[in-house]
Amino acid sequence: MSSSSLASTQAERDALFSRFSLNQQTVKQWSLPALVAGCTQAGVRGVGLWRAPVQEYGVAAAARLVRDAGVTVTSLCRGGFFTAIDPKERAEALADNRTAIEEAATLGTDTLVLVSGGLPPGSRDLHGARERVADALGELVPHAADAGVRLAIEPLHPMYAADRCVVSTLAQALALAERFPAERVGVVVDTYHLWWDDTVGSQIGRAGAGGRIAAFQLADWVTPLPAGVLLGRGQLGDGAIDLRWFLEQVDAAGYRGPVEVEIFNPVLWERPGAEVLAEVVERFTTHVMHTR
Amino acid sequence: MSSSSLASTQAERDALFSRFSLNQQTVKQWSLPALVAGCTQAGVRGVGLWRAPVQEYGVAAAARLVRDAGVTVTSLCRGGFFTAIDPKERAEALADNRTAIEEAATLGTDTLVLVSGGLPPGSRDLHGARERVADALGELVPHAADAGVRLAIEPLHPMYAADRCVVSTLAQALALAERFPAERVGVVVDTYHLWWDDTVGSQIGRAGAGGRIAAFQLADWVTPLPAGVLLGRGQLGDGAIDLRWFLEQVDAAGYRGPVEVEIFNPVLWERPGAEVLAEVVERFTTHVMHTR
Repeated sequence: MSSSSLASTQAERDALFSRFSLNQQTVKQWSLPALVAGCTQAGVRGVGLWRAPVQEYGVAAAARLVRDAGVTVTSLCRGGFFTAIDPKERAEALADNRTAIEEAATLGTDTLVLVSGGLPPGSRDLHGARERVADALGELVPHAADAGVRLAIEPLHPMYAADRCVVSTLAQALALAERFPAERVGVVVDTYHLWWDDTVGSQIGRAGAGGRIAAFQLADWVTPLPAGVLLGRGQLGDGAIDLRWFLEQVDAAGYRGPVEVEIFNPVLWERPGAEVLAEVVERFTTHVMHTR
Repeated sequence: MSSSSLASTQAERDALFSRFSLNQQTVKQWSLPALVAGCTQAGVRGVGLWRAPVQEYGVAAAARLVRDAGVTVTSLCRGGFFTAIDPKERAEALADNRTAIEEAATLGTDTLVLVSGGLPPGSRDLHGARERVADALGELVPHAADAGVRLAIEPLHPMYAADRCVVSTLAQALALAERFPAERVGVVVDTYHLWWDDTVGSQIGRAGAGGRIAAFQLADWVTPLPAGVLLGRGQLGDGAIDLRWFLEQVDAAGYRGPVEVEIFNPVLWERPGAEVLAEVVERFTTHVMHTR
């Protein structure tokens, strides 16, 4: 493990906190201006944004808003959902992804997170769906190159394999990414999706060696899972995941990019955004930054 | 793929149906005598039993009941839950597993299914928990040998890793099993838990080559998952899993044992048991046995 992860001095802790980023979904109750103002007030300099609220506000206006506030957009969520077999659906998905690439560029982030999509209705062909993901990447890479954007394949937890994301492990995401240049296609390491996998440490090493870690996201795993299993992510420190171990792994693999907290949880959305952000920062400090 | 899986002749279909087994949890509404009578009437000659209803009926009485009816107990579910750190809890778990081994022997089955257990409260050490599973197996193997029983490690879907089973993949289950003789420790291949894994085909091959496939269980994957994600297994053919592909894989790996249908679903439990069994058999015929 690299000593830089230990954050034993104030300077090291400052350096680590400078990488902290708040994903917009964690404080979904905040409008985009409230998010930017709240982060600025809290000394948080990075945000991960989502396409729908950005489009609602206006992409160019959102870009101005964050730029004027001196806030960095660490990622845009999300493109993807390109597993359709139907040619028309597939063409629409690719067009939408080209738009997402342009939006990322406008916002000044080089990281577009991709969630692949699940099995088409009635299909049981996981392998075929995964190959269509590779095909879609091949079509999008030139557009990403033109825009200076990197496509970041996010493996989602295997419980989403049927209906949301046929890419279920970091190994699978890397096998897809490695068909393309590292500066154009990377992977997302998200603790919530990958924590159970006993090979994740070695796969993070593989990702780092290839320069493929495009984003690092944190959420904790808490049970029981809610119906639909979409909105049950835990506040940092509330669950089963050794978050600091993950930071140490990506650090040892050479990753020096943002550490983005992305928690989907309606309980957090019912509280004032500033209170949630303060709690996230406190938990980040306690469970991720501090030495063991 | 071996031609024996194709079941193209009536004799081959008969041979495959002779391996069909109904796990008791699929028709939880049935008492043990109703289960045995219902299976006998339907021409089903194998049942997978659970410890609680068997204990309630009396283990020796249950053994007589199935023997007198000419029904084979294909597996007993389940031992395991031996990830505790506390010495007293650990000793209790091991004692309970020795009892489970004796129950399996009394029932005339050589297959005791083990679900490892999750993380102890407050622990985030998946690796440590997995090592305690290996230690527990080491303590139980001599008892299993004395009783002529095989311990069958069941990897559960990664969504259960925190609270139910730290063994999440067939590769992990095999790595544990391979520390012990094949006749004493095997693995369970359950489609519901393993279908998402792109390495499962090669791992089934590894399991077969080592003589490690102790049981093969079927359920389908349907979404959305219910709260708690325990009782949402799908009727065969209703979901995302290519069940016949799985049969072909275990068949090609040399497995010739029971094919057990184990569906946890309250919707099935609300219907008459005989109707559910007839539907399961029809679905098994359509989605598992028939040629493509």
